[in-house]
This record gives sequence, structure tokens and C-alpha cells, in this order.
Amino acid sequence: MDPRVRKHAETLVDHSTNVGPDDEVLVRGHPAAEDLVVAVAELCGDRGANISVRLTSSRASRAYRRAIDVDDISRSEVSLASVREADVSIGIRAATNTFETSDVPPEKSTELAAANKEIQDLMMEKRWVGTQYPAPANAQDAEMSTDAYESFVWNAVNKDWEAVRRHQQQMVEILDPASEVRIVSGDTTDVRMSVDGNPTQNDYAEHNLPGGEVFTAPIPDSVEGEVLFDKPLMAQGREVRDVRLRFEDGEVVDHAAAKNEDVLTAVLNTDAGASRLGELGIGMNRDIDRFTYNMLFDEKMGDTVHMALGRAYDDTVGDGNEGNDSAMHMDMIVDMSEDSYIEVDGEVVQRDGTFVFEDGFEA
Amino acid sequence: MDPRVRKHAETLVDHSTNVGPDDEVLVRGHPAAEDLVVAVAELCGDRGANISVRLTSSRASRAYRRAIDVDDISRSEVSLASVREADVSIGIRAATNTFETSDVPPEKSTELAAANKEIQDLMMEKRWVGTQYPAPANAQDAEMSTDAYESFVWNAVNKDWEAVRRHQQQMVEILDPASEVRIVSGDTTDVRMSVDGNPTQNDYAEHNLPGGEVFTAPIPDSVEGEVLFDKPLMAQGREVRDVRLRFEDGEVVDHAAAKNEDVLTAVLNTDAGASRLGELGIGMNRDIDRFTYNMLFDEKMGDTVHMALGRAYDDTVGDGNEGNDSAMHMDMIVDMSEDSYIEVDGEVVQRDGTFVFEDGFEA
Repeated sequence: MDPRVRKHAETLVDHSTNVGPDDEVLVRGHPAAEDLVVAVAELCGDRGANISVRLTSSRASRAYRRAIDVDDISRSEVSLASVREADVSIGIRAATNTFETSDVPPEKSTELAAANKEIQDLMMEKRWVGTQYPAPANAQDAEMSTDAYESFVWNAVNKDWEAVRRHQQQMVEILDPASEVRIVSGDTTDVRMSVDGNPTQNDYAEHNLPGGEVFTAPIPDSVEGEVLFDKPLMAQGREVRDVRLRFEDGEVVDHAAAKNEDVLTAVLNTDAGASRLGELGIGMNRDIDRFTYNMLFDEKMGDTVHMALGRAYDDTVGDGNEGNDSAMHMDMIVDMSEDSYIEVDGEVVQRDGTFVFEDGFEA
Repeated sequence: MDPRVRKHAETLVDHSTNVGPDDEVLVRGHPAAEDLVVAVAELCGDRGANISVRLTSSRASRAYRRAIDVDDISRSEVSLASVREADVSIGIRAATNTFETSDVPPEKSTELAAANKEIQDLMMEKRWVGTQYPAPANAQDAEMSTDAYESFVWNAVNKDWEAVRRHQQQMVEILDPASEVRIVSGDTTDVRMSVDGNPTQNDYAEHNLPGGEVFTAPIPDSVEGEVLFDKPLMAQGREVRDVRLRFEDGEVVDHAAAKNEDVLTAVLNTDAGASRLGELGIGMNRDIDRFTYNMLFDEKMGDTVHMALGRAYDDTVGDGNEGNDSAMHMDMIVDMSEDSYIEVDGEVVQRDGTFVFEDGFEA
């Protein structure tokens, strides 16, 4: 087995979820990621933990969603019960065809997400991590050879996460006590929001591997302005391009997309919280040096900012503050590398991708 | 998709488990069987049922078992909770390498089976079925081309199960009211057992697909004599050949095997019930016309009898009778095609594979 796979597994089991004796570990992964699943299983055995391995089938998922009547969609009591008993959840993404669910009616996928929201909520109360295995189909999405994509993924994943934590902490200390954040990019994005009292989290690969961002939650009603998300995103098995949103009192009052706008519309209609922001994130991982059409990596890129429609993570909602609630959490990215800045309480803290605490910053 | 796969799925979903609206269906299958998993998922969606698909990884299972200390093996609360919530369980076997777990110490596999016995018990209280997908590695075990093996499997699976039921019912009517059964083959097998008061079941593909046997449970203490199981069997990833057992008062007092005797010993030591018989079965499916080193098929072959060490199925234990209890259920086969007979209450009911109710029978 590739030694980079073993290192990847060690980070998942030891750094991200700290698996120990008597832990019940739920491992979900695509069959294309079997090497990593095997390495995780071996480490969990070595640590004396119990393990339930569940490989996934996107083909079966597609077939089921297409066949079922939308009114018959219900919560899976089997999955809920599984998650309830688990102490640790390790999710490993991979694909043999990333467009496998592209012909599922979007409203069925959103209905299924809504029906299973409680399972998602419960999972996030556990020790959990999500990661990516560099399967050929994922390399294809990234427009890279499998060999080059493997290097890209494992360079981003197998790194010194304590050094990452220290670097990012500088931005946490700016954002955590802040009240207002403004994001400006060209003449297409100018949005303000309050983050008053909401904690800023330092993502150094506890829940996402790779990690590499700092993030907080906007106050749901506070978002005002317009954003063009100029990086594409994948939602419900389809590519959505050039999402434009206009916010008033925190709510999306106007939306458009250059490609697959119907997916965006379905996402916004999931539930009340799906048309408000649940996250503001700042990508800081410069080892992720290219856009690969994979949100787990893309949102961590240096020189980017992302915002998510839908649920706010509990640990980004301050005591007494309202957190946005939704079955949805869809991240969208703004390129900040040129003609852009981030303002915190009236002060520019990043310009064209360079932070105030970095060499070359120009106020 | 091969139309034989769709027919296979229909039998699983409609005939074997009768899936309907609001059922929670747990589908477990090897990734090599993904086509059949997809067809089952589609039908479950069509029937309005909820579905949890869990592909398995024998490589991960091997890695975990090798790594964990035998004293740290415990019941999976995650799996127990899953099965508790399920109404229907569909298990689909397949392999990419049927020897994947061949280097796992047998005592770990038996300990794991013992720890998870309650899960198995609970599953069998639901509507459940187990089947086989004709993957290339399974064809290899059968010493057949994949194409020929596909025909073999789907001929055995996709048939008129009502006609099978009627044919087999003739043997049920002999065995169900019987007291004593004697199995004689050559000079190596002569064993007697009481089945007094224990119901005989007609397997027409409710729990096994293919079906094709009638079976009951011996009274645990009643088994006396010697048996040579002259067909090989796979246990814990290894081939065990020429198992010889001697029974006194129902218990195995002497055992031997020509190959991998240590696996047999580990099986017998699983728990108290593992050294007693839990099943006597008579193979009656003449569409299974060759031995393929796969118990699901082999035990259904015409001209064979099988006995299982370990647990008795609840529906073969009569009211007031004791049923053998164990985490183990290991089937072993005796070839009855030559120089052999089955005696029921002193009367020969099968000679050299031909039943008393069939043409060519010689008393």
C-alpha cells in the first residue's frame, strides 16, 4: 500500500478523531477509496476500537432516488440509529463517476436531505471528519492525471497541522472579536455582514482533511449586498456556474446562475434557512495551489473567501445568538486574488489575497 | 443492465422479503455485486420503501481483525442498532478474492461471531434473505468461466419457486411427522438422530436465494454415530476438507480434517453449542447440477445431505423442544449419490439420491 495512504489514515484516526479503546467508529467510504478504508480499519483495530465499515454506492443512491415518489421519502431510522450509537464518524469521499447522480431530480435530493437532517445534526455532535481519496474520477474532475492528483491530495492532506494551526490563529484573532465584515471583489461583489459575538474557528483538519480555513457564522438577518461566486460548484451531481445572490435583511431576494440555475433554485427552496447564510470562511491553505472543482479543497485555497447557504455550525454561533438552521449547507467561492479586499470593522485585513500579518501586504 | 439481474432483484424484493411502503430495508452487498444492489435499490424505491445500502469490504474486515487484540473484540452497537430498526435485510454475497480473510487467525473470527451473535439473532427475526452475485472471483472458486458461472447462478436463482415448493413438499410430509432419521453413506457415514416434534421447513427461496432444500433440527442430545463430510467447505476464508466427526449423546467427541483441521477445531470451540448439530438438511435442487465450493448452492444440490454445527433455526425447533444455541452455524455436506440411503423411522426414503416419491426409486 502507498505509504501516503497510511499517513492519511493516521491523520484521520489520531489527529482528527483521536480514536481510542471502546470507541465505536463508523467508517463510510466509496469503494474507489478502499485502500484508505483498509488503512483506517487496521489503525482502529490497533487502537482497540470497534468499527463498522460501510462502503457507499452512488449508482444505488441514484437508482433509489429516481424510483421513489417524492412523497414517500422519509428519514432512515436505520441510519439514525447507527449514528446515535457511534462515537466517531469518518467519511471518505471518492467516485468512479462524479456525475453519477446528475440525472436525479433536484427536488428529490433536497427532500432526502431535509428528511435526514436530524441524522446530520446528530453526527456533528460526535467526533467526525470528512476527507477525500484521490480516485481517477476525482482526478478527472480536477482536470489532472491520476498520478498528479494523488500528489496534489496527499501534499494537501499529509502536512504539519500544528504549523497550520499557528499560522491561521493570526486571522482567528482578527475575526473572533470583530463585529462587521465586508467582502469586496471587482464591481460584482460587495457584501457586509455582522459576525458580532460569533466565535471564529480555526480549521486545522479536525473535521475536514485537508483543513486550512478560518470560519465563523454571520448573524442570519445581517447580510446585505451582492455577491458573484465566480468559482463553479457541484451541487446534487451538477455543476452550477456564476451564482449571483442579492441579500436583504439576510435573505436571498434575487438569485441567478449561468449554468444549472434550477439546482440553485431547488437548494434555496429546501427550507427557510436555505436562503440565508450559515458560514463565512476564509481559505488559507496555500498548499492547495489550484482549483479542482472539489469544495473540500477549493474552499481552503489561499486567496479565496467562501460563504455557505444553509446551516451554521454550532461552534460558530455565540451564546445568545441565533444560528441559521437548515438541512442544506452549500459552499460557494469568491476569488479574492485580484482587485479584492476583506474589511473587518472598517479596516482592510486582506488585499488581493495577502493578509495584514503577511509580507507584501498593502493597506 | 443484464435482464437476469433485474429478475434476480425482483425475486429478492417481491418473493423473498415482500418489500412494501414504509419498510426499512437494509441492503448489504460486496462492491462486486453492485449491479444487483442497484437493481434492488431501484425496486425498493419503486415500492415506496426506505433503504440503507451498505457495501462491504473484506479487505477492511481482514485488516481490522488482524490488528485488533482478541481481548478487545466487542459487539458492534452500531450494527445492532441498525438491525433493530430494519424490517427487511437483504444480504448479497460476492467477492473479488474469496481468500481475502484466509490469513486472519481463526480464533479472532470466531470471537467476533460470538460477540455479534445477538445481531445475527435479531436479523433472523426480521424478513431476511441471503443471495449470491456471480462475480468473477466466485466463478474462479467454482472453477468456471465468468460467463458460464453467470448462467449457472441465474438458472438456479431465476426459477419457478412455487413449482419448487410443491416438489419439496413431498419430502416435508415424510420428515415432518418423523421421529428418527438415519443417514448412511459407504462405510464412512452412519449417523442417527431424533427429529421428534421438530418442524421440517420447505426452503423455496424465502431466506436463501437460490433455495431448494428441506431442513429440520436434530434434538441436540440425540445424535449418535460417525460422519465423513466428503465435500469440501470454506470456513473463515479457508478450505476445510474431509471433515470427520464422531457424535456421542449429540456432542462431537472426536474430530479430524484432512486440510485446515485448526479451523474446524476453532469452530468447535466457539461456544458450547458449536459442537452439536443445529440442522439436518436435504438438498433437492437438481438445477444446481455441480459442486461449486459455495455452501449457498452446494447444500441445495440434489443427491446430498448436509448437517450444520451450531445454531438451530427457530422455526425448526418444536414447542417444548430444546433448540441448539450457538454463534456458529457451519454447514457440511455428504454426497448421497452412490452407495447411500436415508432412513426415516426405519424405512428407506431415499437411495443413491432418488426419493421414494420419484421414478426409479428402489427400496
